[in-house]
Amino acid sequence: MKGNVLVGQSGGPTAVINSSLAGVFKTAMERGFSKVYGMRYGIQGFMDGQYVDLSDHIKNELDLELLKRTPSAFLGTCRYKLPEIHEDKAVYERIFQLLDELDIEVFIYIGGNDSMDTIRKLFDYSLLTGAKQKFVGCPKTIDNDLAITDHTPGFGSAAKYIATSTKEIICDALGFNYKKKNVNIVEIMGRNAGWLTGSAALSRSEDCDGPDLIYLPEVPFDIQGFVAKVKDLLEKKDVVVAVVSEGIKTAEGKYVCEYASDSTTKDAFGHIQMTGTAAYLASVVKNELGCKTRAVELSTLQRAAAHLASKIDVDEAFNVGGATVKAADEGSSGVMVVIDRVSDDPYQSATGVYDVHRIANDEKVVPRKWINKDGNYVTEEFLDYVRPLIQGQYTPMMVEGLPRHLTMNLKNYDWKVQKR
Amino acid sequence: MKGNVLVGQSGGPTAVINSSLAGVFKTAMERGFSKVYGMRYGIQGFMDGQYVDLSDHIKNELDLELLKRTPSAFLGTCRYKLPEIHEDKAVYERIFQLLDELDIEVFIYIGGNDSMDTIRKLFDYSLLTGAKQKFVGCPKTIDNDLAITDHTPGFGSAAKYIATSTKEIICDALGFNYKKKNVNIVEIMGRNAGWLTGSAALSRSEDCDGPDLIYLPEVPFDIQGFVAKVKDLLEKKDVVVAVVSEGIKTAEGKYVCEYASDSTTKDAFGHIQMTGTAAYLASVVKNELGCKTRAVELSTLQRAAAHLASKIDVDEAFNVGGATVKAADEGSSGVMVVIDRVSDDPYQSATGVYDVHRIANDEKVVPRKWINKDGNYVTEEFLDYVRPLIQGQYTPMMVEGLPRHLTMNLKNYDWKVQKR
Repeated sequence: MKGNVLVGQSGGPTAVINSSLAGVFKTAMERGFSKVYGMRYGIQGFMDGQYVDLSDHIKNELDLELLKRTPSAFLGTCRYKLPEIHEDKAVYERIFQLLDELDIEVFIYIGGNDSMDTIRKLFDYSLLTGAKQKFVGCPKTIDNDLAITDHTPGFGSAAKYIATSTKEIICDALGFNYKKKNVNIVEIMGRNAGWLTGSAALSRSEDCDGPDLIYLPEVPFDIQGFVAKVKDLLEKKDVVVAVVSEGIKTAEGKYVCEYASDSTTKDAFGHIQMTGTAAYLASVVKNELGCKTRAVELSTLQRAAAHLASKIDVDEAFNVGGATVKAADEGSSGVMVVIDRVSDDPYQSATGVYDVHRIANDEKVVPRKWINKDGNYVTEEFLDYVRPLIQGQYTPMMVEGLPRHLTMNLKNYDWKVQKR
Repeated sequence: MKGNVLVGQSGGPTAVINSSLAGVFKTAMERGFSKVYGMRYGIQGFMDGQYVDLSDHIKNELDLELLKRTPSAFLGTCRYKLPEIHEDKAVYERIFQLLDELDIEVFIYIGGNDSMDTIRKLFDYSLLTGAKQKFVGCPKTIDNDLAITDHTPGFGSAAKYIATSTKEIICDALGFNYKKKNVNIVEIMGRNAGWLTGSAALSRSEDCDGPDLIYLPEVPFDIQGFVAKVKDLLEKKDVVVAVVSEGIKTAEGKYVCEYASDSTTKDAFGHIQMTGTAAYLASVVKNELGCKTRAVELSTLQRAAAHLASKIDVDEAFNVGGATVKAADEGSSGVMVVIDRVSDDPYQSATGVYDVHRIANDEKVVPRKWINKDGNYVTEEFLDYVRPLIQGQYTPMMVEGLPRHLTMNLKNYDWKVQKR
């Protein structure tokens, strides 16, 4: 008789992080583990006794399908970095005591760079103490900035949402340009890596010209150069669409959005106002060129729009979840499951495992050669890499006209009792 | 042999305005009209000779289906108010000269209040001169603020997008609340009418609690009262979600977003910065209550997200378009087609016609009795009214992972020649 599996979610959620959770649950059941516990709010909640028996919440195959279509972190997430082992051994003793009490054999953590750091530390501690649990990381982040894996679950769906929304925004802007030029600036998530921002270029297709300019955080941004470029474009066309990363910085290393705060942008209380990068650039363009401008921030929906998830992404997230359990069950520990691209055309991928020590805290950015010489668009190589990841739809289950999600009923839990 | 039909689009576009255009085209062809001309950029472009023969652009049934799924105004739109007839008769002479040259029998204008004003004036002029053309208005606006018609095409799809996005935003916020309270403020379009803002409440369902607070422009907004209410809620729960109309005003009649401009919110050039209502309220809450806040503006996508259009809305938009041609063909002029709600349960609607003089420039707002006593939520009656309008999906035609739209190839047109 096998023991139990414990799974947690950590860091920013995605549209498909719960598909990985569904994969963990299903494979664990199929491989004969007794129970799958879920940490509420990752390792942070777990240490406070917040965990649930997932079979109380995923009761049948329909629930499992709903879970795959539910955005955000079903279990709740946290941003919590474990101390180094030598800094605070008590934290580790506490965690491993709980693992023993719950008869945990496999510990799965679904997350990005920081979460892989957690897997690494727990694994290292298990080596020091000879603890029997296996620790396996499951990759997840819309930012696609994890090393080694070809791409991360969550990225494809965010890219699909961004490309679709960009296409709709361009379509809208083109209806409005009679004798009135307009400049549209769309702001995309991704502080240091431009994978999501570049994906807006996927909107360029037979029925859409795509954005005119795309600025990734990998290349220094020149505000006056940008205005000059927009001015040039406005001489040839009526509608200009620029897509910018929230994380673009000038050559001095300062975020563009910080320039907004530098000016007298203060709120009623004298505090610096949060002005977005797109809003700031739109005001600069408006003032310098005198044309109509519009700033659109795609915001939270980039990571939450499960209604437009990519089938490839949902399926890969599910498979990667299952592969973590398989890896642990077959004896691996201290590893992260990765996605290997087996073939580009037709697109095929497979999961593998990789030493988590070689992954943690390493940030993968867009290679310079996948950005054009002027630093204002992505190349065909970039698009060939991303395009397979947005393919296919995962039809939401619609109830009363809206996508149905799976929810958790927590009224029978007493965290204090569980914490003991 | 019948003459020709001329159709134009005007005002802000919607996700389904092109479905009405498809309806006009199909019914006109079926009823034996020779040609359907489309005005580029409404009456404004038309006066400059910008019109197209729609059969050059809608070549088959597949094109017609794509058109129904294409957001924004396929023909281009304008915001142009005709002068009163006594003010500038030359404008009318010019328009009617063009109508005669093109052998137009039926003039259809798809739009909101201002567009119905155009229909009214052209009809009145035709009475004065005995011109033979029929003038019929086709309702359209996401704002749902047109009088007489039960609702307007475009509203249902915007409401569906807003309710879905609100649900996804709430889901996202709930994953993040461990030991950190957060307040989320979502800003919705609708300057004077709260139909769209109230529709966010549709997200309240078996799997979602919906927003905590909803503020419509119909009720004066009290900034300090709002902060106090949020403070109360934060004592009971970790995540608070408020939905506000972009048009909320204080009792003094000042837009909330204007308060942001009043403070020292200026950009690098000393110009007043465009700060949204949600961003301003988020900064007030953050400063007064010290909690994490997030402002989300749904922005342009509310009217452009054809990928999430409501089937009821697309079908009604199509039918209303067809009904304009039928009405004119049967002798009506100076009318707008309206939607009558035949039954609530099961929902059924039918088109009718109504004297455009009694519609133009009349703005329908949310009745006070459909807003709760405290002015911070909508009632069940409101929801019963909106819910049928967001039902059903109109599956996008996906190509390479993205919704395909119909586009126009204009390279064979010479507007100068057409203007003569």
